[in-house]
Amino acid sequence: MAHINKNYLKLPGSYLFSTIGKKVREYQEANPDSDIIRLGIGDVTQPIAPAIISSLHSAVDEMGSADSFHGYAPDLGYEFLRSAIAKTDYQDRSCNISADEIFISDGAKCDCGNIQEIFGLDNRIAVCDPVYPVYVDSNVMAGRTGEYDPEAGRFKDVIYMTCRSENGFVPELPEEKPDLIYLCFPNNPTGAVIKTAELQKWVDYARKNGSIILYDAAYEAYISEAGVPHSIYECEGARECAIEFRSFSKTAGFTGLRLGFTVIPKDLEADGEKLWPLWARRHGTKYNGAPYIVQRAGEAVYTPEGRAQITEQIAYYMGNAKIIKEGLAKAGFEASGGVNAPYIWLRTPDGMTSWEFFDYLLEKGGVVGTPGSGFGPAGEYYFRLTAFGSRENTIKAMERFSNL
Amino acid sequence: MAHINKNYLKLPGSYLFSTIGKKVREYQEANPDSDIIRLGIGDVTQPIAPAIISSLHSAVDEMGSADSFHGYAPDLGYEFLRSAIAKTDYQDRSCNISADEIFISDGAKCDCGNIQEIFGLDNRIAVCDPVYPVYVDSNVMAGRTGEYDPEAGRFKDVIYMTCRSENGFVPELPEEKPDLIYLCFPNNPTGAVIKTAELQKWVDYARKNGSIILYDAAYEAYISEAGVPHSIYECEGARECAIEFRSFSKTAGFTGLRLGFTVIPKDLEADGEKLWPLWARRHGTKYNGAPYIVQRAGEAVYTPEGRAQITEQIAYYMGNAKIIKEGLAKAGFEASGGVNAPYIWLRTPDGMTSWEFFDYLLEKGGVVGTPGSGFGPAGEYYFRLTAFGSRENTIKAMERFSNL
Repeated sequence: MAHINKNYLKLPGSYLFSTIGKKVREYQEANPDSDIIRLGIGDVTQPIAPAIISSLHSAVDEMGSADSFHGYAPDLGYEFLRSAIAKTDYQDRSCNISADEIFISDGAKCDCGNIQEIFGLDNRIAVCDPVYPVYVDSNVMAGRTGEYDPEAGRFKDVIYMTCRSENGFVPELPEEKPDLIYLCFPNNPTGAVIKTAELQKWVDYARKNGSIILYDAAYEAYISEAGVPHSIYECEGARECAIEFRSFSKTAGFTGLRLGFTVIPKDLEADGEKLWPLWARRHGTKYNGAPYIVQRAGEAVYTPEGRAQITEQIAYYMGNAKIIKEGLAKAGFEASGGVNAPYIWLRTPDGMTSWEFFDYLLEKGGVVGTPGSGFGPAGEYYFRLTAFGSRENTIKAMERFSNL
Repeated sequence: MAHINKNYLKLPGSYLFSTIGKKVREYQEANPDSDIIRLGIGDVTQPIAPAIISSLHSAVDEMGSADSFHGYAPDLGYEFLRSAIAKTDYQDRSCNISADEIFISDGAKCDCGNIQEIFGLDNRIAVCDPVYPVYVDSNVMAGRTGEYDPEAGRFKDVIYMTCRSENGFVPELPEEKPDLIYLCFPNNPTGAVIKTAELQKWVDYARKNGSIILYDAAYEAYISEAGVPHSIYECEGARECAIEFRSFSKTAGFTGLRLGFTVIPKDLEADGEKLWPLWARRHGTKYNGAPYIVQRAGEAVYTPEGRAQITEQIAYYMGNAKIIKEGLAKAGFEASGGVNAPYIWLRTPDGMTSWEFFDYLLEKGGVVGTPGSGFGPAGEYYFRLTAFGSRENTIKAMERFSNL
């Protein structure tokens, strides 16, 4: 008789963004004339840049002709894309990462969710609180977290590293030693960043304890200040303790195109075993590559035209972030983030819980945001807005905030 | 200190097709003038059909304009595609499957590999031998198979169902009761099919024992004979015991575009829990949807033009299959398959092992096939050829066979 994976039943409620989507759909059905502005889910709104569109069209034409058709992609992804990434994102920043240490995938969410598979079930994980839900949820499913404590809003066997305004939303090194440490900077949801010297302490800590850092750098393209690392491999010794995840979703608007990559240095070991061949095996066995046309689109991101166009797009979103921060300040909200990240993290007014404020903002302002508590209990009384709306909607949303 | 998932170390060698790729690359480097014909990996060679190419171009244009841009896809996939599938592949064949029981993904390989996650580690799996390696390998990685016995070429805790010419490559119902039963018809690698009445026995058996059938129907488009089911849901009661996987890879040449889907009926239960919400949760947490443009390409497969064009493509490949079967017969080989499937399964000559014949065929004939033993020990002394080459190469390969 077949048995289910009972770990799934430990997950409280549904995936955060599915819940939000459902709430908004229901609200919209009940209020068909409402003009909802979505600054909730971190989805982009700007169209794919012209250089990338043009590359997609050429690649589609290639697929339509027998002599240029492409079937299954190489296991790690196409060399043309891996080389462009290795050069631009790493070697040009003095990070010692080569093309064959890069695994192309269909996005950082999948990679962040799947990476735990190559580690044993006996590993203890540490996550920031609040945190992008995928890190914890994928470990719950695997059975690495123990039971959920509804009072604490936390899983028993997870080491939570609280991030609140008191520590600038950057966690302290945990006293209890974790085996796997999930870090995300620029941070989703708080928009906080970590300085290079600070990140170096984490690398040193991980090396000392034999921990592996799972570093989610999906938002690195939004970094505007000096001294903020774009990659964990800017730190000395990171090749020996860190895996890095990157995404084209926020860098180049690929949320609907799907492209990302994971970096696993060939030196990286646990239990005396290299991790590179384990991930290669997983990739080869359970995945079949990102579409050729999308990998060509990714390549276009690294051309001079593509680069100029996405830089402009990011500047556009960061212009929105500025409008949100200024609008919130004017409306009397306490907020952070939005300088090196497309996320603005605000404290809810009048002691409202995150979900109370979600409902209040939707009903009074017609604006959708993300409840901070959806990212963990330390996110309670916080709320996330994103800079990914259109300029017009962002300005309108801020007008509505000032009239709340 | 981080620990690896030691189950990965139980996997003997690398993923089959990665090994073949490596061997062929090495041979080609050593013999740069050799004219290799690849009938090994099941990759298609015909370009994407014009109706699909045209749909891709339109979708790419949509992505380039703010008012038609698409970001994250809905969790289950776009409704336009799920509805087309539900109608054409199921309802028109009198299978009671609705659009919201279909989960769009980037391919059957990923889904077949990931599906085991929603089941407990205490489930006993049954697989055909020989078999597509992903079923077993993904269960090894999860820790469901016990140790590998190199002498037997089998994992201790897996129920293997031998498929050889004696049983027409269709397994008998296993005496020992499995919890999860992987079936693939039309079969990869043998090209064998199961008749509807025969499959009904499996459905009855699964319902009686509370087993779940994981039915891989990736090759259903190649069925040419009556009485052969295209879907397991043609059998009575299958909604209560079966999950089905489908792929656009072989149906419409999407190996490089990546699209597939999984059907989980809402009735389906194990341990008194519905499986649909578990897979929905996995999909929502660890996956972010197939690209919008590729889902539009999938939709084009269901238009009258698209349908006519892919039917022609399949007829082309099945023409190859006929040439291979006739060529093999003329060259004195014993072979089966190739009538309702793009695979031809031949017995190696002169008692050669599968890998011996692989090397012999590559060196003497410059033809790449797949060693039967790579699919399991009962595949030893067999060899798989695919009909996915070009007509010209297929004819040339058969000439080389006759000169072996």
